[in-house]
Amino acid sequence: MMNTYRLPKRKAWNELLQRPAHTAEQLRMPCEEIFSAVARDGDQAVITYTKTFDKTDISSLKVPKKTISQAGKLLDKPLKDAIKVAAANIRAFHEAQREEKKIITTSPGVHCWRESRPIEKVGLYIPGGSAPLFSTVLMLAIPANIAGCREIVICSPPPIHPAILYAARLTGVTSIFTAGGIQAIAALSLGTESIPKVDKIFGPGNQYVTAAKQLAQYYGVAIDMPAGPSEVLIIADKTANPDFVAADLLSQAEHGPDSQVILLTDTEKISTQVAQAIARQITTLPREAIIREALRNSKTIILPDIPTCIDFSNAYAPEHLILATKNPDNLVPAIRHAGSVFLGHYSCESAGDYASGTNHTLPTNGYARAYSGVSLDSFVRKISFQQISPKGLRQLGPHIEIMAEAEQLLAHKAAVSIRLQARKQP
Amino acid sequence: MMNTYRLPKRKAWNELLQRPAHTAEQLRMPCEEIFSAVARDGDQAVITYTKTFDKTDISSLKVPKKTISQAGKLLDKPLKDAIKVAAANIRAFHEAQREEKKIITTSPGVHCWRESRPIEKVGLYIPGGSAPLFSTVLMLAIPANIAGCREIVICSPPPIHPAILYAARLTGVTSIFTAGGIQAIAALSLGTESIPKVDKIFGPGNQYVTAAKQLAQYYGVAIDMPAGPSEVLIIADKTANPDFVAADLLSQAEHGPDSQVILLTDTEKISTQVAQAIARQITTLPREAIIREALRNSKTIILPDIPTCIDFSNAYAPEHLILATKNPDNLVPAIRHAGSVFLGHYSCESAGDYASGTNHTLPTNGYARAYSGVSLDSFVRKISFQQISPKGLRQLGPHIEIMAEAEQLLAHKAAVSIRLQARKQP
Repeated sequence: MMNTYRLPKRKAWNELLQRPAHTAEQLRMPCEEIFSAVARDGDQAVITYTKTFDKTDISSLKVPKKTISQAGKLLDKPLKDAIKVAAANIRAFHEAQREEKKIITTSPGVHCWRESRPIEKVGLYIPGGSAPLFSTVLMLAIPANIAGCREIVICSPPPIHPAILYAARLTGVTSIFTAGGIQAIAALSLGTESIPKVDKIFGPGNQYVTAAKQLAQYYGVAIDMPAGPSEVLIIADKTANPDFVAADLLSQAEHGPDSQVILLTDTEKISTQVAQAIARQITTLPREAIIREALRNSKTIILPDIPTCIDFSNAYAPEHLILATKNPDNLVPAIRHAGSVFLGHYSCESAGDYASGTNHTLPTNGYARAYSGVSLDSFVRKISFQQISPKGLRQLGPHIEIMAEAEQLLAHKAAVSIRLQARKQP
Repeated sequence: MMNTYRLPKRKAWNELLQRPAHTAEQLRMPCEEIFSAVARDGDQAVITYTKTFDKTDISSLKVPKKTISQAGKLLDKPLKDAIKVAAANIRAFHEAQREEKKIITTSPGVHCWRESRPIEKVGLYIPGGSAPLFSTVLMLAIPANIAGCREIVICSPPPIHPAILYAARLTGVTSIFTAGGIQAIAALSLGTESIPKVDKIFGPGNQYVTAAKQLAQYYGVAIDMPAGPSEVLIIADKTANPDFVAADLLSQAEHGPDSQVILLTDTEKISTQVAQAIARQITTLPREAIIREALRNSKTIILPDIPTCIDFSNAYAPEHLILATKNPDNLVPAIRHAGSVFLGHYSCESAGDYASGTNHTLPTNGYARAYSGVSLDSFVRKISFQQISPKGLRQLGPHIEIMAEAEQLLAHKAAVSIRLQARKQP
């Protein structure tokens, strides 16, 4: 099902590294139309688009408190327990990302430091559709809550699954709105009667949501990162278990027909065995049709050795990288570009997707070259502070005067000179 | 010169908080034209636009090594010494931002951590025009160098001042190109024969550069932050020295006619004295005309007390915030939004602009609500890692299975089940 490439030359890599093309730019016009309508008509525009796109009549956007507080009653206890275990792990990992305040005395009398402040209002987009992504609620709301964001707002298209409401309540989400697609992003960017304008928008979504988030930036709203289809790259040596590797490839492929999965191996036998295992396992999976389509874009590449596999992986910059090798620790220093890395035969991607504690909102489409995944940092700003004593300025000031003069910014110089010349230095 | 507002009611704040309007969106068409031309004609397009916009004939874009290495000979020793002092302070402050690796055991047998990796190729835009901004070279190239970026590329319009070349050489910049404006950003986004395509573009610029950086994001290139005119907000109590406050307001105003400066005080007398000091000092400054224009958009606002001043400042979210008050430390916890904060009567903004060690690339235009200033973090990505033992998965796995099933992602569940069912767990 996956195309197999044997020992391609490096100059042939460029073609193998290609991802399916993007469409965000082409979707700009519909986004602009919907943004304009939401700016003009507020809630009513969102309600109308919800009828058109989601085929759902709603009279108000805000999910009532009672619906949220009672959502847990609709869920089984084992699911609630699992959500709590995952939430505790995600909390532990993200709590450890707090930065301690360190005052640096760069010169005598010159004290500089940074302090974190939460982003005040954040909007979390939780996609609907075939699967209720309550795990994404955990991944976004927990760091927002740790950061101390005052308003943590969810938008999600109807019908909103009770597991989403339950996870939202567990993690300190402050309000939930029935709104999806471009109209939800427009509402979070512009504000309506019900939905607050937020400072930053997070969360995955289809190509429409992605395009809307790009447009949101023109309205002064920050976003978590640009998005593309989800992807995994697995590097397997001869110690790999072909069944495990096949299962990991299939789990990524079920996300959607545009998912990309890549297997790199230095062992021809492994590639054959993984193909056989895929053929066996795929028939047992309900999303078989989606998976078959995704595998059509996907590749098995046999390379001369594991270091060459790492080189290829760095050139691809995968969202998820699984090292199904004997000594994965030894490979870590050579990894230059990836969103999240899974080491060894028992670190399956599903663990990171749900419950190990790392964040599953990660850079796709090669954006791992420039972006990190979502973390506590994504929900704070670090403000720099400085306190300079009269003595400190006496020593540093003359250098500042010289530099300001060389940049022809004489008022900058004067702000120092006037202090150096002051008689009383309190 | 500045308009003065006495004790405005809170409902009148909204108007006082307005900034001059933005034009990035309107400049999208010229940007797209220039990006297309650079994509098509590479270096030649950049050379042609340089002739058109910068009125300069150049035959090649790359600044020769010899020109760079000899630039220092054209500078006075005191300037070189000042640049070295500033560089050492900036290096000390940004070195301290390195993150230590912490392995978090979120559950028994589940180990998660993050590791930093440099962004490989970064482009630094250094504006030309009236003043040679070598200080911006320090602010961008030093953290890039600490991060370990492999290619640190500068683009700057002709003529490039020797101080820019000197600062670039001192800080480990790998290549410098004579290219400015939209065409420089296009070249860094797309790559040409000479100029490499980079992963992330940094640096200030006029409205054209700002619009081009926004467009660059559509080409998959990250940027430091959206930009707007520079601004300062000063909170002064009765202990403030009116001459110092005036000098700080003037130093911000000289950046350009669209700069914004705001003075908040609880003391009518201070507002009068500052106005008098501005009138005295302004006539001594070479950029008097620019400053007068900037002051026309600027405001002095008298508020009932210092906590109300802090409230107003938080609502404005200034790039620079100076606390010219008796006990500025006490105000720090209440500061929610700002790019960089200067505490007390001797911490002038010029110090942070040049030499105290903090970064001067900061969020303007209210973006301090969602963005931090440039720091070491801006030049790295943090990759998450996880290593799960067979025992660890045995304990966590059942929860993952339940969650994956509830999200209807059965292949995700199967990737866990197949491991839990494996007989030999190596």
